[in-house]
Amino acid sequence: MSLIVAKFGGSSVASIDKIKHIAGRIKGMRDKGDDIVVVVSAMGDTTDELIELASLTGHDLCKREMDMLLATGEQQSAALLALTLNNFACSSISLTGWQAGIKSDDSHSKARITGIETGRIKNELKQGNVVIIAGFQGLSPQGDITTLGRGGSDTTAVALAACLDALRCMIFTDVEGVFTADPRIVKEAKKLPQISYEEMLEMASLGAGVLQPRAAEFAMLYNVDVEVLSSFSHNPGTIITEVANMENHRAVSGIAHDLNCARFALFDVPDQPGIAKTLFKTLAAENINVDIIIQSAMRDGRNDIAFTIEEKELSRAIPVVEGLVKKICASGMTYGNDVAKVSIVGAGMQSNIGVAAAMFEALADEGINIHMISTSEIRVSCVIDECHIKAAIKALHRKFELDKIE
Amino acid sequence: MSLIVAKFGGSSVASIDKIKHIAGRIKGMRDKGDDIVVVVSAMGDTTDELIELASLTGHDLCKREMDMLLATGEQQSAALLALTLNNFACSSISLTGWQAGIKSDDSHSKARITGIETGRIKNELKQGNVVIIAGFQGLSPQGDITTLGRGGSDTTAVALAACLDALRCMIFTDVEGVFTADPRIVKEAKKLPQISYEEMLEMASLGAGVLQPRAAEFAMLYNVDVEVLSSFSHNPGTIITEVANMENHRAVSGIAHDLNCARFALFDVPDQPGIAKTLFKTLAAENINVDIIIQSAMRDGRNDIAFTIEEKELSRAIPVVEGLVKKICASGMTYGNDVAKVSIVGAGMQSNIGVAAAMFEALADEGINIHMISTSEIRVSCVIDECHIKAAIKALHRKFELDKIE
Repeated sequence: MSLIVAKFGGSSVASIDKIKHIAGRIKGMRDKGDDIVVVVSAMGDTTDELIELASLTGHDLCKREMDMLLATGEQQSAALLALTLNNFACSSISLTGWQAGIKSDDSHSKARITGIETGRIKNELKQGNVVIIAGFQGLSPQGDITTLGRGGSDTTAVALAACLDALRCMIFTDVEGVFTADPRIVKEAKKLPQISYEEMLEMASLGAGVLQPRAAEFAMLYNVDVEVLSSFSHNPGTIITEVANMENHRAVSGIAHDLNCARFALFDVPDQPGIAKTLFKTLAAENINVDIIIQSAMRDGRNDIAFTIEEKELSRAIPVVEGLVKKICASGMTYGNDVAKVSIVGAGMQSNIGVAAAMFEALADEGINIHMISTSEIRVSCVIDECHIKAAIKALHRKFELDKIE
Repeated sequence: MSLIVAKFGGSSVASIDKIKHIAGRIKGMRDKGDDIVVVVSAMGDTTDELIELASLTGHDLCKREMDMLLATGEQQSAALLALTLNNFACSSISLTGWQAGIKSDDSHSKARITGIETGRIKNELKQGNVVIIAGFQGLSPQGDITTLGRGGSDTTAVALAACLDALRCMIFTDVEGVFTADPRIVKEAKKLPQISYEEMLEMASLGAGVLQPRAAEFAMLYNVDVEVLSSFSHNPGTIITEVANMENHRAVSGIAHDLNCARFALFDVPDQPGIAKTLFKTLAAENINVDIIIQSAMRDGRNDIAFTIEEKELSRAIPVVEGLVKKICASGMTYGNDVAKVSIVGAGMQSNIGVAAAMFEALADEGINIHMISTSEIRVSCVIDECHIKAAIKALHRKFELDKIE
């Protein structure tokens, strides 16, 4: 008898009909003899509706009280799922985060799990219950309710799987798994049967939003096997695991893309120690998250520096960067939201020479100009004009023969 | 500096606008220098909506899970009030029942408070916070969330006032206080400035629903001064307290009535030991609550027995009583929902001779026939035809000169 942790997102519990659907699925898993711990998000738009309500109280939304308010969403869906399962003659009990022993730090609205006291959960499992846990929440050292930030239910599920030594953590969602590229753009995109933690992390942070990056980190850290699969079909999903033999079969696992990009370029920046620090510390202090940074080769003692940020922060960033141009005595700047980022991700590229070169070739063959390049051990990203993004994804998918993945 | 416990019901927190209204009122109280503990119910129809949602999950509604679900309503309104007060620059913090240290037994859906560990509340007060507590809920010895049953927020408030040794427990509601009769029926009805615990208990159980009977019991037991007042006006309300000098000034404090009555009469019941037991134990086993019971004087070794029940239980009760008539060999029965109960209530009647007689006289003068009479130390109730109820209330109000109460 194994233990399985199953997480269902907001769209899977958006109505009582949907809750009944997943209750049937959970009962099927339970009937096979496994112990089941379920983690649920709030129903559909509940969290957004509560935020909307709170915003009517005034401008200053105390984070401690927001957590108190928002945590009720998951408590409700957990109780409703328990009521449903009990009506399906499948014995179950719902637990809040604090009842489940989930301890966190006191960073309200973005708390981190510091540990899980699993006594109550284990006791309920021993009594034959399916244990349903309100995701996204914990208890601070002060005894206050915290939330883990949006998408935090994934983290709850992975952390529980780690602490309970579960066989697997199943993340039920509205997609079938992790694909080689966005299936809406590339018709031939294939569902990946397996993907490594590192690849998932790169994919997740690049916008393939099937698993929260923090949850993927947690899974890697504690070596938890995670399966991402659809709650609406019975097809196998994508298993995220430590893949030892990855280098043998493919260099590139998937093409990720991100349209939410804006770019800045600063010209003739003096080549002096401390200039980059001034630039990026100021942006960080303004809570503007910088993604790719490129510094061109020095010419006559001056550099060009370019970087990208999230598109939604562009208007806020413009006056900040304008001030910096003056301060550091650059000769000028340009900016724009007309760019996008396309990336190839694959643990196999570490042992395959020429992967980056093949990427640049594929883009060049399509006549696509590359503005910026950034690399990690298992990823190559190019910033290109946004109008070329679909062509770029399709070309790269062909180049690396991702339609042939089994 | 005194401590005041203020409770606001569902209609007082039904929208953010209403929450802002009471937040202004709470800030006004706080600015006078008192420490304030606030108890809130769920917003408007939240509890009914959650019950409706739960009913879609199936027929069997596990009480433990219903408590888990319903307790979120008060948690939400507490958090929203705290957000509002903080936006009004009135420092506040919301606490769930378990955070406030409210311990209960494990009778889910109708739990009783067994004690309050006031450490956290006192600590928050010391830090200058208005402490807002989710009413209607507690924590069982098993660590589960319980609810105190509908209207339980009144009990939470009175219990907190008792344990915190508060100067007063203010119950804000949508009426101005306790009246000498229903103002919709008697134009001259006066708001009572004061009323004793015992009178309030009789009034409450007779349907003058301004304070839950259990809360009134709690207040009497722990000698808590309770003020019932309107959250929409600034008029003083009715103070419920131990009134030592009551007997000096009035025999009758108010006229209560109850339209939710149905009557049964059983004829020629054998006068044998155990007959009454058979009758009323059977009704109790069917969960049919019997109010007034009358046994007429014996004639030829047989009695007539009449009793009243709640009108809504009539159709369920008829077959039960029909079976009993056969079993106990009575000669027949009648029943009907055409009756109502009118009562005079007053602590002063204990030391005033002839109060009951004056009541019967007033009804007789109006030509109103009395079907049944029941008395307690501070109450006389008459069951009459429902069609006469308004005339009866008006006549009694005049007879006892309740329009002259100051």
